[in-house]
Amino acid sequence: MSSVTMEQLVALAKHRGFIFPGSEIYGGLANTWDYGPLGVELKNNIKRAWWKKFIQESPYNVGLDAAILMNPQAWVASGHVGNFNDPMIDCKQCKVRHRADKLIENALAEKGIEMIVDGLSFAEMEKLIAEHKIVCPDCGALDYTEIRQFNLMFKTFQGVTESSANVVYMRPETAQGIFVNFKNVQRTMRKKLPFGIGQIGKSFRNEITPGNFTFRTREFEQMELEFFCKPGEDLQWFEYWRSFCRDWLLSLGITEANMRLRDHSDDELSHYSNATTDIEYKFPFGWGELWGIADRTDYDLKQHMTHSGEDFNYIEPETNERYIPYCIEPSLGADRVTLAFLIDAFEEQKLEGDDSRTVLHLHPALAPYKAAIFPLSKKLSDGANQVFADLAKHFLVDYDEAGSIGKRYRRHDEIGTPFCITYDFESEQDGQVTVRDRDTMEQTRMPISELKAFIESKVQF
Amino acid sequence: MSSVTMEQLVALAKHRGFIFPGSEIYGGLANTWDYGPLGVELKNNIKRAWWKKFIQESPYNVGLDAAILMNPQAWVASGHVGNFNDPMIDCKQCKVRHRADKLIENALAEKGIEMIVDGLSFAEMEKLIAEHKIVCPDCGALDYTEIRQFNLMFKTFQGVTESSANVVYMRPETAQGIFVNFKNVQRTMRKKLPFGIGQIGKSFRNEITPGNFTFRTREFEQMELEFFCKPGEDLQWFEYWRSFCRDWLLSLGITEANMRLRDHSDDELSHYSNATTDIEYKFPFGWGELWGIADRTDYDLKQHMTHSGEDFNYIEPETNERYIPYCIEPSLGADRVTLAFLIDAFEEQKLEGDDSRTVLHLHPALAPYKAAIFPLSKKLSDGANQVFADLAKHFLVDYDEAGSIGKRYRRHDEIGTPFCITYDFESEQDGQVTVRDRDTMEQTRMPISELKAFIESKVQF
Repeated sequence: MSSVTMEQLVALAKHRGFIFPGSEIYGGLANTWDYGPLGVELKNNIKRAWWKKFIQESPYNVGLDAAILMNPQAWVASGHVGNFNDPMIDCKQCKVRHRADKLIENALAEKGIEMIVDGLSFAEMEKLIAEHKIVCPDCGALDYTEIRQFNLMFKTFQGVTESSANVVYMRPETAQGIFVNFKNVQRTMRKKLPFGIGQIGKSFRNEITPGNFTFRTREFEQMELEFFCKPGEDLQWFEYWRSFCRDWLLSLGITEANMRLRDHSDDELSHYSNATTDIEYKFPFGWGELWGIADRTDYDLKQHMTHSGEDFNYIEPETNERYIPYCIEPSLGADRVTLAFLIDAFEEQKLEGDDSRTVLHLHPALAPYKAAIFPLSKKLSDGANQVFADLAKHFLVDYDEAGSIGKRYRRHDEIGTPFCITYDFESEQDGQVTVRDRDTMEQTRMPISELKAFIESKVQF
Repeated sequence: MSSVTMEQLVALAKHRGFIFPGSEIYGGLANTWDYGPLGVELKNNIKRAWWKKFIQESPYNVGLDAAILMNPQAWVASGHVGNFNDPMIDCKQCKVRHRADKLIENALAEKGIEMIVDGLSFAEMEKLIAEHKIVCPDCGALDYTEIRQFNLMFKTFQGVTESSANVVYMRPETAQGIFVNFKNVQRTMRKKLPFGIGQIGKSFRNEITPGNFTFRTREFEQMELEFFCKPGEDLQWFEYWRSFCRDWLLSLGITEANMRLRDHSDDELSHYSNATTDIEYKFPFGWGELWGIADRTDYDLKQHMTHSGEDFNYIEPETNERYIPYCIEPSLGADRVTLAFLIDAFEEQKLEGDDSRTVLHLHPALAPYKAAIFPLSKKLSDGANQVFADLAKHFLVDYDEAGSIGKRYRRHDEIGTPFCITYDFESEQDGQVTVRDRDTMEQTRMPISELKAFIESKVQF
């Protein structure tokens, strides 16, 4: 459906109140973005849709909201202090800094060579740069520093002195907040395996080269589930969640052709993983990861057991069998999936004659406004306002009285409002309004008293 | 209703999955807290209730979700780089660090003297310590360093070098993210004055002495509204929001006697404020601020105009009058108000005979579970599970089959579940279940088909 360019999308996002450049009046701050009035509603609706299917309706899962600031030992145990690094390389000529792996991948891709560089040694990467004469994309020189490690965690100091004893990190993922609470949750919720713990929250990574609008940002939001099960049953649960995640995207309207499931090959798999699949979306700039679904075995709980001394063994109530649970982790980027929903919904539609319109075909459950109420004339504002106030108790709705009805339709098509409700002079008499469908543009006359139930049925998913 | 101690509340919060100590398996991290499965639901319900009344139902207000990381110039303009300091003082004997103003206030309060020290000069504070012989509460010595400024903003470095050019702050309040977007929001949403912009999000303050459970933490969540209006109409809007905030708390069940509105006196008012009221709650440790409602005049927009060069003048469409809007700011702490709702709902209730129960009288809109489904026997799990699955599409509900029905009632009283639904052998025949009310403990027989509408009517507010 969608053939939007990033330029079109960024412009629509900015001009229609979805996403603004962060701190814009001060010239911005490297790739930070603020969700405007419509963006925050869209993103909140996506987060609610995730919570509904992964937590609320699930007989297995419960939620959590752990602090962003954690004891630094947690990041030693998770491996982030030691290993959460990107290889960076500087161009000696123009001083621009690059991620070495991405530099090589992009340069090779331009030559038609597809290669995953992540995981190669620094020496191997430097050899590739030399062999393929990969020049600096900014100045064209082939004159680099050595490749070095750069830890991606933001650090800060807690308390009053800036000594190393007071270093704390801004979490680079929400997952570890779940692992350290495994016992707390299992005990207080009296959970038996299998069960999962889900969390939505901000994470921070000091990326060397953030970019592609909200696709890669230093501050971002995650929706992560850690699903614990018996070893041996992990691959079957991996399949279960892999399908569940794909179905969630499809049920909310992502076009199947714009999505692919990429299973990691054996040499791409992390050493502790039994299986990993990335759900990728076809962004205007290429395929990009939305959702990583990984069978992480007992790696994380074991790491925390070793570093904390806490016993994470689970004892089967029936058999008294004792083991460390295995864990399946579906990890979704809230900002990325919001971007994917926007792109997927976008259409420049040719209409009869020379007419055209921009329309966002967002699923009604995700659309910022569920409906917009238009008084045909300002004389009708009392009655129309009453319709607005009644519906606003249940949904976010807009009240729009500016310009012709046709202009108002176009305005709301562009922001994905599924239903436009016109209140006219007859409405005063017969208690009916005209409901116009965003996608079909068909108009139906409907009693005001039925609007709530009608919209409710459409936002179900 | 409530006479809970903090010890009781912290214990209940921990053992019933509301709030766990952060990073507990690593010995914690100074006053960080993780919301457990019930805590995250309670807090989310509170955030939704705020959003519903302040954004969704409001004809004036829209939402926003600005980034935590902002251009540092925003914090220069807001005054936080220059003035967001606490006076700190060290005991030379035991090396414990104190907030000088709190040290003095607490010591004087013990002597029956009520005094607001905030705003005094360092010399005046040092004089008070000497005059009243205020000793260190940790070791009893009267041997302090001088009072010094300590800036409360957490700072970190963005990008690859830790130079001052790369310093960024973790926002100490969400408000500035709103002010810098004033024009973006006004333009894209075609808003006329008066209108407001609301935001919910994390903020961070490097408090010298955090404490009282989740009342004062370094990482916390705010729900802030900045409401812009015409100068001269500000005091009337201040009154409007002051009442609106109070009513919101009352409508969700806060006991009026546990709440007070404290208007700032002229010498307590910030130099730019026309009026300020704190809504305070009677916590077990004393009165504490929940909500600050301030008429901030045009101070913030003017500051950002000066520092950014952006023109924040508003032009009245009808009169062409030109002015910088005034702003009313109701600023609520999400963690504090969650704590207040928990405390206010808590009751140790004596029952007939020697029986007693712990019950959380949470408003059904706020209760984590809206209902719990109990099969009378495990043989009835198919039918009971169907009731669970049907209700779970609309509300968070629990399924509980462990122990006697009486035990299950007590368990759910303690976590505030308003309705317990018992599915028995007759239910299989007549399609009816027994619904037991948490507060009255009355039981009613009700058709399964009516449960959804019944619960829906109860969670309205």
